[in-house]
Amino acid sequence: MNREIHLVERPKAAPTHEHIKIVENNQPEPGSGEVLLKMLYVSVDPYMRGRMSDAKSYVAPFQLNEPIEGGAVAEVVQSNADQLSEGDIITGMLPWKEYTVQKAEGLRKIDPSLGPITTSLGILGMPGLTAYFGLMDIGQPKEGETILVSGAAGAVGSTVVQIGKIMGCRVVGIAGTDEKTSYLKEELGVDATINYKTENVSEALQEKCPDGIDVYFDNVGGDISDAVYPLLNKYARIAQCGAIASYNVPNDKGPRIQMHLIKSSVLIKGFTVGDYQNRFSEGFQHLSKWLSEGKLTYEETITEGFENIPDAFFGLFEGSNLGKQLVKVAEPSQKS
Amino acid sequence: MNREIHLVERPKAAPTHEHIKIVENNQPEPGSGEVLLKMLYVSVDPYMRGRMSDAKSYVAPFQLNEPIEGGAVAEVVQSNADQLSEGDIITGMLPWKEYTVQKAEGLRKIDPSLGPITTSLGILGMPGLTAYFGLMDIGQPKEGETILVSGAAGAVGSTVVQIGKIMGCRVVGIAGTDEKTSYLKEELGVDATINYKTENVSEALQEKCPDGIDVYFDNVGGDISDAVYPLLNKYARIAQCGAIASYNVPNDKGPRIQMHLIKSSVLIKGFTVGDYQNRFSEGFQHLSKWLSEGKLTYEETITEGFENIPDAFFGLFEGSNLGKQLVKVAEPSQKS
Repeated sequence: MNREIHLVERPKAAPTHEHIKIVENNQPEPGSGEVLLKMLYVSVDPYMRGRMSDAKSYVAPFQLNEPIEGGAVAEVVQSNADQLSEGDIITGMLPWKEYTVQKAEGLRKIDPSLGPITTSLGILGMPGLTAYFGLMDIGQPKEGETILVSGAAGAVGSTVVQIGKIMGCRVVGIAGTDEKTSYLKEELGVDATINYKTENVSEALQEKCPDGIDVYFDNVGGDISDAVYPLLNKYARIAQCGAIASYNVPNDKGPRIQMHLIKSSVLIKGFTVGDYQNRFSEGFQHLSKWLSEGKLTYEETITEGFENIPDAFFGLFEGSNLGKQLVKVAEPSQKS
Repeated sequence: MNREIHLVERPKAAPTHEHIKIVENNQPEPGSGEVLLKMLYVSVDPYMRGRMSDAKSYVAPFQLNEPIEGGAVAEVVQSNADQLSEGDIITGMLPWKEYTVQKAEGLRKIDPSLGPITTSLGILGMPGLTAYFGLMDIGQPKEGETILVSGAAGAVGSTVVQIGKIMGCRVVGIAGTDEKTSYLKEELGVDATINYKTENVSEALQEKCPDGIDVYFDNVGGDISDAVYPLLNKYARIAQCGAIASYNVPNDKGPRIQMHLIKSSVLIKGFTVGDYQNRFSEGFQHLSKWLSEGKLTYEETITEGFENIPDAFFGLFEGSNLGKQLVKVAEPSQKS
């Protein structure tokens, strides 16, 4: 039998096991031009919360009583497609199933000799590209400027802080545990950190950003961002990547921000990585070069077992991950 | 005796007569390089509310027990400066005094043959330039797009809607009286209007912006903008010019907006006209060309009497003006 994870009810606040169900089904058979895939690693990402709602958004909502889908790495175990062979490792948007049949188009073959296959879901995948384009295209950091990053120890944030250092900026990172702030300082070279769970964020920002804030890479929104807006410098840029603090809060309210934007001529730009689709190769080039030069590093938090995908996803909203949160579903076969 | 209008207390909410005092002083004498000016017209503008607070902002706060200052048109009645002669009409930032002494530098001589001298405070002055740069530089309107303008019948908004039509866009204007919405439709050629005091703004926006909103020129913020964010199209641009709905509301709260920005990859840019100082001549060129071609028109609401400046200013927050709100203090002398 083949296990699948379905969305069975749309969460109004935090997603829980009530909204999700593990379902057993027969193993599928690939048709012509299709491949049978064995899931190896599943990526769980905060943006997926948005697809659980049926509000109009940039991606279609998940269907009820159908498998949830997301970024994943899988192995081709049977191929009826010319482009892919048994044993190939691919990445793509896949349904949460232990085995799945897909058209070969839309899958990207990974060369495992270039690095661990999990990097295609992290630093050399969607989170890495999100960090690169948000910071470089919207943040436009200049040497000596102060960059503030919220959610700094996550998959996107931990890449942003490192690119910020490569650009010659002063980088301040906000995270929610001392383990994360230590990682930011000791492993990633961040100049100052704030633990938003133990420190007064407003006071800490004033102390740790004495020259104000020029670029704010925002993954979280909510109370943390409320404390940031008053400290933005003239012509500051905000890359609005996420708002995880609001995802599970219906009708979330906070101080209005328009006056801060006017006062300091601030730019905010919301974005998703898909906006930069035609520049992905530029992003990959920079990220893989920096990675090979040792200027970029990354962490992964890997949960084991297909049945633990939901808990790994729920944990994102508790901040339980350091770096990229993945779920390992199976070992690649000997061959790959 | 020479009358002056002082700020005597900083308003926490709406400014009233309690915060302002008319003071009498001796008539000043111009020194070397200085001119004695007779105030003719005073401009009252929403941004001046910000200078009444002592919060850090893009311009220094007004000093307590000193004259308020703002844009004005005045006549030179005595000159000790080579650049200016008796009878010249000038515009500049002047203290609210019937007669004032100023250095000739910083004053701009107006050529009254080019048009009414009051236009230097309106369509060919700060409000006109604000409209031009906010719409063209931030809004970047493309032919056929939908532009929404809040505060559409004010000095800035009424210029924005007309430039929007010149750019070939569908223009929707929001204002607070039927007189204003009629003016927008009948005089300025706006495609659709919303009276936010008598209509349900959310429903009206959906009806009157059936293709969504590509550019939002926002003068007001508050509840009106709350209703706009969900209707923004992918890659919409918001020129955040003002937030008059929040100026008099301490700790104003509303729905958080970050998720709307992410969902549709929206750009918001706060600005003030001073950001474009080195491009003013470009703005003047376009505005005066359109004005001379009859493509731009303007309204003025003129209150009479120096002592009525405070009431004219307070009225801005009630929306009592159509087009540019001015106060006429004195007639120019025969000579000019």
